[in-house]
Amino acid sequence: MPSSPIAIPARRGKAAFIARGESVKVINTHGEQVVDTWAFSRADLTEFMSMEHSRAGIQRLIPTVGDSMLTNHRRPILTLLEDTSGGLHDTLMAACDVYRYHGLGCTEPHDNCTDNLAQSMRDLAIAAPETPSPLNLFMNIPWTTGGVLSFEPPVSTAGSYVVLRAEMDLVIAFSACPQDILPINGVGRQPTEAHFLVG
Amino acid sequence: MPSSPIAIPARRGKAAFIARGESVKVINTHGEQVVDTWAFSRADLTEFMSMEHSRAGIQRLIPTVGDSMLTNHRRPILTLLEDTSGGLHDTLMAACDVYRYHGLGCTEPHDNCTDNLAQSMRDLAIAAPETPSPLNLFMNIPWTTGGVLSFEPPVSTAGSYVVLRAEMDLVIAFSACPQDILPINGVGRQPTEAHFLVG
Repeated sequence: MPSSPIAIPARRGKAAFIARGESVKVINTHGEQVVDTWAFSRADLTEFMSMEHSRAGIQRLIPTVGDSMLTNHRRPILTLLEDTSGGLHDTLMAACDVYRYHGLGCTEPHDNCTDNLAQSMRDLAIAAPETPSPLNLFMNIPWTTGGVLSFEPPVSTAGSYVVLRAEMDLVIAFSACPQDILPINGVGRQPTEAHFLVG
Repeated sequence: MPSSPIAIPARRGKAAFIARGESVKVINTHGEQVVDTWAFSRADLTEFMSMEHSRAGIQRLIPTVGDSMLTNHRRPILTLLEDTSGGLHDTLMAACDVYRYHGLGCTEPHDNCTDNLAQSMRDLAIAAPETPSPLNLFMNIPWTTGGVLSFEPPVSTAGSYVVLRAEMDLVIAFSACPQDILPINGVGRQPTEAHFLVG
């Protein structure tokens, strides 16, 4: 039976243990929220979902329904089962971090996805061995034929979602991206909460 | 004065200390050899060239002349000064590793770029803190409008090169990719040596 929806609070992270075979439905509750997503093998946290290994496996810039993301040991870890969001996600961009906001002109501390990953893992009394490049759900980074990239608002709508199946016992970690300088969370630049269901 | 050419032996790695302001000319000696490239801050090896941070900074899938690759602290580490190779390089694919060759059907151990990075650093009596996604010089991974990727032979020619300027004191590490199953090192699938000059 699916769990009740679990909140990923606006600008914050949330992690959970997921058993092999369980599915995680990640809901873009308000429609324009990017959700940085990581997955680590429960048995060995140094094995984790890797964008650079996944791209080599699926031979796509963005996973599509049926694709399995791979770990740094090239094993399937999460399979995309459903996607009602419009299918635009990102595998190219690093999680935002203190350095990113400093470069964008922030002089005060700013919430960021890198710190959110660490905090969400600490809440489970575990530690990420590093900050892998995340699967940025709902994040819209178009590319041109010439390889030029840009940061654009999501195309997802309120309540749209993806479903990911765990291919091993794992820890999943999410961050509701606090980016409010670029329009990556919508032109209103208002980070919001998102939710997930495990079942 | 530039150094004499230093060999990156076929199927092997080679690392060197580079001072801020020095340039490294990486020569595709025989024309079709992919050279996986990493850079680590000499002062703190946990700060290193990051493809996911660089793409966010340069907003391109492939660096072009004038672009600076960034570290995981979003600082410039290597700037592309010259490129006579045709301009096709790769920032998307993980270094090959034992898992890759196992997946490609190898039942015996196979040389691989991940092990070459580690060995080349050990030769300098240092250790890479992790295996960052490499800048794959001369590697031809085209993308379609729909985001489909493929592994293609290089377009570079014998003696063509890139010049990279060090923006901090750093350790540079190269691997002459031993991939001989896919045609990424040319349709002849014959890994070769490459060379670099420091000056």
